[in-house]
Amino acid sequence: MTSGAGVVLDATARPCLFDVVSKGELTRETIVVQGAEIASRIGLAALTIGQLAGRVEMSKSGLFGHFRSKEILQLRVLEYARERFAAQVVRPALRVARGEPRVRTLFENWLACGRRGDPSCLFLSAVMEYDDQPGVIHDELVSAHRDLMDAIVQVFRTGIAEGDFRRDADPDQFAQDLYGVMLAFAYSHRLLRDAAAETRTRRAFEALLGSAR
Amino acid sequence: MTSGAGVVLDATARPCLFDVVSKGELTRETIVVQGAEIASRIGLAALTIGQLAGRVEMSKSGLFGHFRSKEILQLRVLEYARERFAAQVVRPALRVARGEPRVRTLFENWLACGRRGDPSCLFLSAVMEYDDQPGVIHDELVSAHRDLMDAIVQVFRTGIAEGDFRRDADPDQFAQDLYGVMLAFAYSHRLLRDAAAETRTRRAFEALLGSAR
Repeated sequence: MTSGAGVVLDATARPCLFDVVSKGELTRETIVVQGAEIASRIGLAALTIGQLAGRVEMSKSGLFGHFRSKEILQLRVLEYARERFAAQVVRPALRVARGEPRVRTLFENWLACGRRGDPSCLFLSAVMEYDDQPGVIHDELVSAHRDLMDAIVQVFRTGIAEGDFRRDADPDQFAQDLYGVMLAFAYSHRLLRDAAAETRTRRAFEALLGSAR
Repeated sequence: MTSGAGVVLDATARPCLFDVVSKGELTRETIVVQGAEIASRIGLAALTIGQLAGRVEMSKSGLFGHFRSKEILQLRVLEYARERFAAQVVRPALRVARGEPRVRTLFENWLACGRRGDPSCLFLSAVMEYDDQPGVIHDELVSAHRDLMDAIVQVFRTGIAEGDFRRDADPDQFAQDLYGVMLAFAYSHRLLRDAAAETRTRRAFEALLGSAR
């Protein structure tokens, strides 16, 4: 397939000519970043190649040359959001002291992401659109959510190991509860523009920690 | 505009010929119910007139004659979901004894709705798609959510009045917290198919009640 710039590209092919492929990859990255930005506002399911083509000033056929289908484009956008969430929320938390400080850092990073409506939160919001639709997007979402739940559980467990939380505190319960607190924040903050949303979210988080001590 | 059945209809016109309009309204209701069922699986933003036409075995132009735009169709679907949620979750709770029993009934009805993926939960799942898109759908979602938050607050307040909850318990905090518990349930149950999702949701609910007593 031929892109708008006249360069033969295949989204899955291995590089053979370094300069051509690196240009193509750079283009794809730019498209994916723009796609994530759009999808974080209108939803992943509504993201189309036509719409994105206008944004990145390429022809539809050019964009199609890079991604071959709407589904592959959406999958790349989702993978990008997932990696961005890991880089902004999860990994920085793993660099602070084990135990409660680490749990707090995870919470603060997540809150900051949600507050600014960062595209990294896309893989959270896309769930409701794809929870009943089998396919690669659904599988990517399940995998991303399992990773997130595992990350919360692991971080919480360092708190048990360090003696910050009770020995019999349930890490899976904490993960689901924290997730709910963050989802409610996203709804109250972004949809209802409720000025007290963050204060309540912090109270709910402190209550969760309190019950784990 | 002419529907597929050759009947002149306008989605907003007042009835002038009773038999014609009642047939049209019945048709529109059927379409909206089917639309809600589809949207509860694929998301409201992805619901198109073309897709729905296939489901209800009408022509696209026939469906267009009933709703005039995708946006009006989506709005009607959302209004239907909102009314269904009120009828299945909120109003039955208002018929049981004030206080904690009423809060529990609200919770159980909501849980039952979420468990079976009822279309009434559509106005919850559609939020992430429309939180950043100004327009009638966004306004309808904000209004539906304010109503739901108000309903939770009112039901919780009967618990304070009846002496089931502390005088200084915060109804707005409870509303946001319960909302989070229910959202986390939707995610864990529907996306992750986590068998323990409901047990954890019940534990989280009991913890919320415990902290309010």
